[in-house]
This record gives sequence, structure tokens and C-alpha cells, in this order.
Amino acid sequence: MRVLQGGIVGAGKDSFIGFVHRAGACLMGESEIKAGVFSSNPQKSKDRGKELGLNPERVYSDYKDMIRGELSRPASDRIDFVIIASPNSSHYDLTMAFLEAGIHVFSDKPMAISMEQASKIKKKTEETGLLYALTHGYTGYAMTKQARFLVESGALGKIIRIVVEYTQGWLSPLVENPELFNTWHLNPEISGPSCTMMDVGIHALNLIQTITGLVPHEVCADLGSTIQGNALDDQGTVLIHFEDQARGILHASQVSSGEGNALRIRVYGSRAGLSWDQEYPETLELMNGDGTSTIYKKGTPALCGDAKMAARLPAGHPEGLISAFANIYNSGFRYIRGESVLPGRDFPNASQGVLGLSFIEAIIKNNEDMEKWTPLRSL
Amino acid sequence: MRVLQGGIVGAGKDSFIGFVHRAGACLMGESEIKAGVFSSNPQKSKDRGKELGLNPERVYSDYKDMIRGELSRPASDRIDFVIIASPNSSHYDLTMAFLEAGIHVFSDKPMAISMEQASKIKKKTEETGLLYALTHGYTGYAMTKQARFLVESGALGKIIRIVVEYTQGWLSPLVENPELFNTWHLNPEISGPSCTMMDVGIHALNLIQTITGLVPHEVCADLGSTIQGNALDDQGTVLIHFEDQARGILHASQVSSGEGNALRIRVYGSRAGLSWDQEYPETLELMNGDGTSTIYKKGTPALCGDAKMAARLPAGHPEGLISAFANIYNSGFRYIRGESVLPGRDFPNASQGVLGLSFIEAIIKNNEDMEKWTPLRSL
Amino acid sequence: MRVLQGGIVGAGKDSFIGFVHRAGACLMGESEIKAGVFSSNPQKSKDRGKELGLNPERVYSDYKDMIRGELSRPASDRIDFVIIASPNSSHYDLTMAFLEAGIHVFSDKPMAISMEQASKIKKKTEETGLLYALTHGYTGYAMTKQARFLVESGALGKIIRIVVEYTQGWLSPLVENPELFNTWHLNPEISGPSCTMMDVGIHALNLIQTITGLVPHEVCADLGSTIQGNALDDQGTVLIHFEDQARGILHASQVSSGEGNALRIRVYGSRAGLSWDQEYPETLELMNGDGTSTIYKKGTPALCGDAKMAARLPAGHPEGLISAFANIYNSGFRYIRGESVLPGRDFPNASQGVLGLSFIEAIIKNNEDMEKWTPLRSL
Amino acid sequence: MRVLQGGIVGAGKDSFIGFVHRAGACLMGESEIKAGVFSSNPQKSKDRGKELGLNPERVYSDYKDMIRGELSRPASDRIDFVIIASPNSSHYDLTMAFLEAGIHVFSDKPMAISMEQASKIKKKTEETGLLYALTHGYTGYAMTKQARFLVESGALGKIIRIVVEYTQGWLSPLVENPELFNTWHLNPEISGPSCTMMDVGIHALNLIQTITGLVPHEVCADLGSTIQGNALDDQGTVLIHFEDQARGILHASQVSSGEGNALRIRVYGSRAGLSWDQEYPETLELMNGDGTSTIYKKGTPALCGDAKMAARLPAGHPEGLISAFANIYNSGFRYIRGESVLPGRDFPNASQGVLGLSFIEAIIKNNEDMEKWTPLRSL
Repeated sequence: MRVLQGGIVGAGKDSFIGFVHRAGACLMGESEIKAGVFSSNPQKSKDRGKELGLNPERVYSDYKDMIRGELSRPASDRIDFVIIASPNSSHYDLTMAFLEAGIHVFSDKPMAISMEQASKIKKKTEETGLLYALTHGYTGYAMTKQARFLVESGALGKIIRIVVEYTQGWLSPLVENPELFNTWHLNPEISGPSCTMMDVGIHALNLIQTITGLVPHEVCADLGSTIQGNALDDQGTVLIHFEDQARGILHASQVSSGEGNALRIRVYGSRAGLSWDQEYPETLELMNGDGTSTIYKKGTPALCGDAKMAARLPAGHPEGLISAFANIYNSGFRYIRGESVLPGRDFPNASQGVLGLSFIEAIIKNNEDMEKWTPLRSL
Repeated sequence: MRVLQGGIVGAGKDSFIGFVHRAGACLMGESEIKAGVFSSNPQKSKDRGKELGLNPERVYSDYKDMIRGELSRPASDRIDFVIIASPNSSHYDLTMAFLEAGIHVFSDKPMAISMEQASKIKKKTEETGLLYALTHGYTGYAMTKQARFLVESGALGKIIRIVVEYTQGWLSPLVENPELFNTWHLNPEISGPSCTMMDVGIHALNLIQTITGLVPHEVCADLGSTIQGNALDDQGTVLIHFEDQARGILHASQVSSGEGNALRIRVYGSRAGLSWDQEYPETLELMNGDGTSTIYKKGTPALCGDAKMAARLPAGHPEGLISAFANIYNSGFRYIRGESVLPGRDFPNASQGVLGLSFIEAIIKNNEDMEKWTPLRSL
Repeated sequence: MRVLQGGIVGAGKDSFIGFVHRAGACLMGESEIKAGVFSSNPQKSKDRGKELGLNPERVYSDYKDMIRGELSRPASDRIDFVIIASPNSSHYDLTMAFLEAGIHVFSDKPMAISMEQASKIKKKTEETGLLYALTHGYTGYAMTKQARFLVESGALGKIIRIVVEYTQGWLSPLVENPELFNTWHLNPEISGPSCTMMDVGIHALNLIQTITGLVPHEVCADLGSTIQGNALDDQGTVLIHFEDQARGILHASQVSSGEGNALRIRVYGSRAGLSWDQEYPETLELMNGDGTSTIYKKGTPALCGDAKMAARLPAGHPEGLISAFANIYNSGFRYIRGESVLPGRDFPNASQGVLGLSFIEAIIKNNEDMEKWTPLRSL
Repeated sequence: MRVLQGGIVGAGKDSFIGFVHRAGACLMGESEIKAGVFSSNPQKSKDRGKELGLNPERVYSDYKDMIRGELSRPASDRIDFVIIASPNSSHYDLTMAFLEAGIHVFSDKPMAISMEQASKIKKKTEETGLLYALTHGYTGYAMTKQARFLVESGALGKIIRIVVEYTQGWLSPLVENPELFNTWHLNPEISGPSCTMMDVGIHALNLIQTITGLVPHEVCADLGSTIQGNALDDQGTVLIHFEDQARGILHASQVSSGEGNALRIRVYGSRAGLSWDQEYPETLELMNGDGTSTIYKKGTPALCGDAKMAARLPAGHPEGLISAFANIYNSGFRYIRGESVLPGRDFPNASQGVLGLSFIEAIIKNNEDMEKWTPLRSL
């Protein structure tokens, strides 16, 4: 199986979503990031590319250069796909250009900043047959797949009511102190006609689509700009009438102080309801008509095929364990590279290993000898 | 920064911990796996190496060959470190051999299967100065670091009592049906003198060390073999007297039907207690003397420096989001490779992107025009 | 302290809220229920009064008779107050009549079925100076008082956003089978102009008042009648603009299959947010701006005075323990009355007590003698 | 149905358990407390009796007087039962005396302070046929009955392992400051040979009995006295071998800082496990072999008959709602008695009722007229 080559646009040093894209794309060894545009400042872009271990020739400061540069390489050694992780307003031009160049596209949401742009991209993907994947990341969780399965299997009956929210607090500090920091999300030229709905509300909508397939028919909205001098919404609620009479509420906020990233959905049908919370993504609650709830858990035999496939670790092992291991490896690598690190503290070392075996030895002895207390032997 | 080269021993196709090692070692781009022994069967080892995209020359069927082979390569193109992810009884020979060959070691727990072996390894690491990192993965979580910080900062006062458990249910099916499946964990020749205590109890002990630094002084144990014909323990409890008068309970089981991977610790001091549950690793509870609890959360400003550093994603974004993205990328790659996949279902596609913008457009219009209901425009 | 006499109207045999009123009124021994109207059918009313141990002379079949009858008794032996626990449409007439008769009123919500009625009652209470208490029961919890304290103390800063819901599933069976059962809540003549908003939405509104004191300025509502042939709403959402620019969402449903009685509120301010869930009423979460949460718990020293006063049991003992004791007493009383009951099963009996002491004796001996295993002595 | 008469011994002013006994005994109107001994100090006993509204003639300062006094009354107007809620060491004498006087007994745990005493009481109850109910209150919860049902129905298979704990923190302040307060629980003459095991460990044991019926065969214990100068245990762990090969751990502590009243049990069988936490008593988790959990909830149709009977309020309404109502009634009664109270704050009043109807009126209008925003009408 050929390892695919990927390029990336955006994802500067402080972009967490850029990291998630890279890590997600490479986790299974199916692809490697080989090219990128990390800044419109050529030097910054080069520096970042170097940090990421890229061939300097394939680090660009402009997406047009990147397309030109990559297309000039042999077909077997150029990017197969691009990851678009730049701010909203750039998505349209980038997507169209890469599709036109015959390069597959993974794009961060939103697809574009207007419906017209989005429609043109859709048309272009249909014409070219190239991949266009919109990375609403939450759709990749095992439990959103299980939720869809439960809806499709009829476990809920007819869908009656949907309540979805995406609640954050990261803009809250601006409420009392609007000058505290800047973010492009509040700039209409970059963000598009909405801040909160474009940034997170659109995820919540997609989650409804993913789980229920229901399409909104009409909406009634109340958007608010709480932060002084803010042209765009920072909180809002949308009442939704779906086709086929179901009703919904989608509410989102980025000024809900104390909240982290509360994407939560509940879907109620005539027979049962379901509830999922992105902050605890590996469980899913089915609220049954008899008053019990069934809790589904990642990595267990009770799940549907799609949900089983979406787990990389077994039951009870959160997928984030990979990051915990990465932390231990990172500390070990620092030791190998001669950097400052404290063995036995930054990672478990031989002394801790010896203590572990001393403990095992003592309990085996205690258990066999039937003595009440057995001391641990020290080295 | 040079990308380090890693080798791996063990981690065959079905080894989830092998995957976690590889993924953890490579997550930040600091290292690449370049060599490996995946099976004692030469063909199987080759096949697995091919799947992982390794150079066939660097896929071995024996660790001695691997050491020989790697040492015969130029110093700039050989493995810097090895990951030992094979069954327990092999750890000692492997570790000693790699250390003697001058290769840094990351080893899965347990360090070895006897205290004597462990002590020799410890001595060897001291002589060589090479890295020996024991991958008790749970120590890599932000919240175990925050827990340690709280203990060290005196927030708990003097430690009085520790309750730690590691409860699983994966051996439960053998209780009623001992022939259902085999596992080397129940084989004393491979597992060592204990199954459950060696497999998971030793993690629980290490977690005590990590968070409190307290050393057990003497133990009283009750180990049980519930599965018929099982020579080793499959459940057990250890009473612990620590130095300095604290008491503890460590209990572990692999026949607790319905449990996934319940590693949980509580530490009680004279002023406060703390509680952490590995299945929900990104929060930590501090139970205060005034009856409130403080909940610490990954990725937030309230954490200590070590805990902040251990988060790769911001507050409210579980680290497992990387796996969710990986699922989307995997589906996209299947599309690119011409494999069977359903766009719009296996990953969000352009149609869903257009719907998103149609939704945004309608709510902006509704909010501005002050009409009650605004229909979504279809393409 | 004189024990007050209470009368009750409504609260027939199957009325759980009637029981809660009686139990709540009598819990502390400050009052006794001495009179009542339990049915418009004289015999049924008598029968119910007998079950409740009332003097038959003081069991009436009509509220007018009750007023007449009680007023004809000596002042020292007549009802001081009435509990109105009958269906909505009767509240106005009953309340006015009792107030006019000089009798204090505790009324179940809603106050009445129109604003005109409600206003007249308010005027009457002002004229008479008599008690008019509207039993929004959730306001009596320690944690709603603590929530109010946190808002008033400025812990949240300026209130920005409120999300409150009251979600039930008890009407869900009617969605697929509208003939399954009848309830006066769906009858506009008894319920008033709304089912769900009048039954539970009004509780949610009151909870906003109780905690924040904020007054709605204008609303935008979407009410739905999901059940075929249902004239009134069974689900709905209200967008609220409060005075002083805060925004809110109040959503309620009685067709959310699988839900019990999910009254939940979140209040977000410029500095912190709070969250309370009626199904777990004895804890309250304060979401701090630094990303931690503080969990307040009933019966602890950290609470404000009002919240401390509202707890009858200490920390960690749910108030519902009283019901658990009542179950044991009820079983014991059945034994005393010679009714069918299984000692040792329906309540712990002497055999279980002996086993308890045998256990204590064995562990004391084991601990002192330092033997590993001590058998329990049987009688 | 005759209302039974009860007497009470113990339960002075600050005894919360005394209150729970009285409230539990009287909740359903089946009994009334008519006599009592509240202190060995005659005046204090009288004062307390007065507060409770008892006939002064039936308030005694000694249990022997009480027995004499009550027996001298006509059979139809004397106590049927006594509630023993005094400290441990008095239980034996009291219980024997009341049983000998032909009076039924409800006794707080422990039954007595030695196995010999307990055995004599058992013999006496058998001889007299009188009621002896030991008020392990937790056995009265619906969910402990459902847990027993699940075990008996075979849902768990053969019981393999039990983990039960009773963890409190109320003695923690004594660890750093042993002089801070006194409690009879630490006095061996009153408490018996154990503090923590006698006070709470014995509850945990009874919970095992209640749910599983398994009888301990032998024990291994580690009890600790953490508080300086404390003769009795304040923390401890007991390893238990049950008949029929099941193993168990019972651990208890009253020096676990920050804990309230954490009585928690898990029972693991060959097919499934169950988990219950007294601090959230109205739900019960069944951990199924397929990796799902089933959550049972109080007041729902899915429960067994005994569990259904044990609920007084429907699903989603915590039983503690009675206390919340009691708080509202208490405030209303203070108003009636002319005491200091703030209507509209200490209880919802007419103004809040009017606002509620104004809200309903506005949303009905908004919904019908299809206008976007409707102002609330003020009075």
C-alpha cells in the first residue's frame, strides 16, 4: 500500500486544529505530510516547515506556488491531497484551486463563507470526481456512528425533537475587557457573516445531519453580540422546523463563562431518546421508553459495525491514551537528545520497575505463606 | 532537530498496546519506526513489516538479528531506541541485550518477571547511562501530573489513606466457560508468577508512586484464581502499610464482569482528598475539607506547568479527537485509493457543506429581517 | 408553639403531588392536616379522608362546604391554611374564596389560568395580608438557594445568558397511540391555554426568577402539538430577551421519550457560570473562569446561610433517606398489624444484627491477634 | 386503620438520625410519636418533648419510667412501638427491657456492642414474637431492592467478587487537631470495641447481606487509628472470604477528608456486575457482559415489584422533594405565625405567580400570531 503524500495550508505554530489534522492524517501510517504553506511570511513558513522536518523545497509561502511547485514534481512524488486549515475566508479560493489542479481536498469547516461559494465547490467536486472531505471531526467518533445506527435501526421510532448545543467560554474574558485579545473569528472579513454560528453552530448542525439525516426546513434565530464593539454574533439560538414535522433547537455560545467545548446532542423519538456529549465522547446514552437507560461504550461487542471500526483501542481505554504515551516518549526522547528531563519523574524509570517487582514478589509470598504481613525486600 | 529512529519488538497485528506505542512515539514527529521484529515466524514478521511500510531489510525475525543488523548500519541510519512490547517473560533478555548494544530502551511493563531480573536491568542502565523508560502509560496524563502537583504542594496535608483499583472484566467469560479462549497472561511461563497483579496491579502501584511518592513497607494479600484450571491469580486485594503510617488498599480483578478498564485512585490527606478515574482521564477531583470539590480539567489555565505541558489540545477537546480525525482521514484515503467508501456518510462531503452555509444564510437573514420563520434556500 | 391546622383540596388517591404537599407540610411537626375535599363525589371524598385518618365531620365534598364548615368551628380548632392541589382551572375560584374567608393559602402552580385571574388574586392577597405561597417546589432546595447566593454575591459577574429546560417523557406513549390514556393536562378547559408550558415551563421560568431575579422583557415561541388530536402544546421552546440585555432559552417537552423530570438550568455571567439539575438536586456546579469547576454539596460548611438552613440531613445523606426509613417503618408496621411481611427481607431483623456483631468481633480479633484469617463465629 | 403510637429514646435536639427516624415513622400517617426520653437530664427531656408537641406526661427522663408510665395507660392509648436511637452501648438494655414489656422495637444499628448481647436479643425476639427491626436505612431504597432482585433473578450469574466501601471525612479535622471536638463514637465505653466499623462498616456488611445474601466465612482485617490518642479505629479494610468461594473487600474510613457519606457497593458475577452509590440512591447500574450498562431509575416501569413499591414519587422526582416542599411550608408557616420571613424570596408569592401567567400569555400570543417578538404585559 502506497503511503499517500499530503500538503497542508494553514496550521501555523499555535493552531491546535492544524496539529489535529496532521496527527489524524498520519496516525495510521497511511500518509505523510510532505509539503506546506504555514504563513504568508516566507521566513515564518520556512521556519515552521523546518520544525516539522519537511524538505525546504516543499515549503511554500503561497498556495499558488505550492500548486505550481508540486505539479512540477514527478507524479509519484508530489502531494496527493491537501489539508486546508486556514481561516474561513480563504477556503473558497484554496479549495477551487487545488481541485482544479487535480489535488484531493480535506477542508476544515466551514466549507466557505457563502452558500454561493459552497455551491460552486460542490459543482467542482462533482465535475472532477476528486475527494472533498469536510472535517467535521466529531463525525469520526465511534459513538456518533452508533447514534446514527440507533436512529436508522428504528430504536427511537419517529424523530420528534432534537436539542443540540455547542457552548464555549473562550470569548468570555472579552465581555468585561474587550481589548484583552484579538481573534480573526470576530472579524467579518475573515470569519464571514457570523462568528459563533460559523465557528461552532455549523458543527452542531452537521451533527444533526450525521445522526438523523433530517434536513431543516425553516428557522427562527436570535443572535446576540455580547462583546462591546463586536460586529458578529458571540451567542445565539435557532429554532428549527425540520421536514416531516420534527422540531429542533440549536444553541451556541462562545461567551458562556467556564464552559470548555460543550457540544451535546439529544434526539427524541416516539419510542426512545439518545444523548451524546462530545466532552465524554466514548459513551452514548439511549433513554428507553421503560425508564431505563442503556449506556453504550466504545470498543465493546454491543456496538454496530461502523462504531466498532472507529475504535482503535479496546473498551475502557480512552483513545487519548495515545497522547499520554506520546508524553512519555517525548520525555524519553528529551533524555536521548541530552535535554533537561528528570527520569523517574518525567517518565517511570528502572527504580520504579524494581519497586514493582519487589511488590509482586512480596504479595506472592504473603499469599502463599499465609503470613499476615510481608515486608517488601529492598534492593 | 534530528528525527530519531526506533525499532520495535513485539506488537503483532492484534496488539493494541503495540499500536499505542507506535502512535505515541510518532505523534509529535520526533521519531519514526524504522525496524522491527513482529513475530518469531520470519514470514509473518516480514508481512507485518510490509504493512507498516518498513524497509524489508530492517524487518527481522529475532531480536539478536535485529541488534546485529542495526549495528551493521551507519551510525546515522540505525535505530536510536527500541520499544519492547513483547510478553513479560522476554523483557529481561531483550532489555539487557539492547542496553548492551548501546540502544536506548522503552519497555512495556512489567520491567521483568522477577525482582532479580529487574535489579540487574537497573544496574545495567546505571552503568550505561542509556535511557530506560518503563511505559506506565497513565503517568503521561495531564491529570496524574496535576494530582502529583496537588500532593507536593501540600493541598492534601499529610497522606493518610490511599485506595487504588484496577478492575477489568475481560477474563469473565472464562468463568463459566474456561475453554473459550487462551491468553498468555494466564500462562506462568510467559506471564511470570502472577496474572492480574503483574498485568494491571503493577500499574496501580505505579500510580501510587507517581502521585504520592509513598513507598510500601509491608503488604497483606489475598489473591484468587476464579477461573477453573487457572494457576495464576485473576483477582486480588493487597493491604499496604506505607512508610510513615499511611495505609492503602490496592485491588485488582480481571473477572469483574462488565468492567472495561477501571483504574481509579483516591488519595486522602489530613486536609483534602483527590480522586482520578482513568476512564475519564481529563478531569481530576480535589475533595476539599469544607465539603466542596474542585474539578480540574485538562487544557485549562488553572493547572500546574507539567499538566499544562501534557495537553496537546485545548480545554474541552478530548485528546481522543485525534482518533476521530484519523477515522475521517482514513475514509478519505480509501476514497482516494478507489476503495469502497460512502462520501456523505463515511465522511462529511460537499453536500453537507452546502447545507451548512444554507443554514447560516437563513439564520443571518432571519435575525436581521426580524421575520419569524425563514426557509432554507436549496441549491 | 401551636401546631397549625391545614385543609387540603384536591390530592386524591393517585395524586403524587398531593402526597408531597401533605408530607412537606407535616414533616417538621409544625402542622397537621385536619380537613379536606378529596373528590366532588361525596363518598369518594369520605373514603379518602378516612384513609388519611381525618375526622369525618371535616371531610367535605365541596370547597364551599369546607369553608362554611370550618368557619363554624371554634377559632382555635379550625384550619389556619388550605393547600390547593386541584387541577389548574379551579385555582382561581378556590384561592379567592379561601382568601375571602380569611384562610391562608398554599397553592400548587399555576396560580391561575389567565393573567387577569392571577392579578386579582395578587390584589386580594395585598388587601387581606394573608399568606399566598405558590409551591414551586424546586425553590425549596438548598442548591437553588446557593445558586441565588452565588448570583447575588457577584461570583458570576453580569448575567449574559440563561439556558433552562424542563424535559419529560410521560406523554410520549401517546405519540404512537393517542388513545392509550387520558389526562386533564391535555384538556384546555381544565389545563388552560397551554399544557406543557403551564405544567412545567412555568416551573422553569420561576427557577430563573428564583436564581437570577431577571425579568423577561419579550419572547419568541415555538410550541408544538405532537400528539395527534391534541389541542395544546406538548413541546415548545421560548427565546427570551431579558431586561438589561441578557438572553435566554426556555425549552420544555413532555414527549421526550425516556426522560423523567429533567429540570435543568445554566446561568452564564461575564466571570463564571452555574449549572443545576433537579434530578441530582443536592449538588451545584460553579464553572469558574479559570477552567475549574467548584462543586457545592448540600449539608456542607461551604454553603451560604439560606442553603445551610434548607438541609435537614448532613452532607452525603440525601434528603430522600427519609423515604427509605419510611419504607422500613412501613414494613415494621405491617408486621405489628399482622399483615404479610418477611422479616429479614422486608426489613433487617435480629439475625442480621447478630451477623453484624459476629463480623465486628472477628475483625477486632483478627486485627489484634495478627493472624491472617479469622473465621466468623456462628451463634 | 388504627394509627400506631410510638415512643422514642434518644434523638436529642442535634441528632439528625433521630429526626430521620421520626420523619420516616410518620411520613405515611401510619404512626404518631406520642412519648419519649430525650435526655437523662429531666428538664432537657421535657423541653425537647415540648418542642415536639408531646403530652408532657408522656415525656420521661429514663427508659424504665417510660415503660412503667406507658404500661400504666389504657391499652388503646399507649405506645405500640419504641424507636431506639440512643448511643450504641445502651441498645442492649433498652431493647431487652422494651421487648420484655411487650413493646415492639425499631432499633438503630448496631443491634448491640457484642455478639453475646446480640444473640440474647435475637432469642428474646423469637420468644416474644414481637417486632425487632434494625434500621439499616439503606435497605429501604428502591434501588437496593432492585439490586437484590437482579442477583436473585440470576442476571449476574454466580457471584465472584464484592467491593463495598463506606467512606466519610467527618473525623478528618481531628487528624491535625485532635482536640477540636469530642464524639462518643471514639469512646470505647459507649461505642463498643470499634468506632468506624461499628458506626459505618456494619452498614456496608448489611448491604452485602441485603443484596446478595452471601455470608462471610472468614476475614482478614487491617484497622488503623489515625487520630492521635484515639483508642478505636477510624479507618480500616477487611478482606472477606464468603461461603461458596466468592471474595470481598469491605473498606471504611471516617478520616477520608472531603468525603461525605460514600456508601458504595459493587457486586460482580460470572455474567454481569452491578454498582450502587448511596449518594445517588435513585439509580442503579447493571454492567452487562456485552459492554453496555443498563441504568435502572427509581419510579419507572422497568423495576421489580419491591422496588416499585419503595418509591413514593414518580420517575425523575427525587424523594428529597418532600424536604424541599417542607422548606416552603416552613417559610409559609413562619409568615402565618408572624415571624420574620421574606415573601417572594423565602417562598414564591403572588407576584411571581402573576409573572408566570404573563409569560404564558405572551408565548401563546407569539405562537399564534406568528410575530417574532411579543412583549410581556405587566400588570
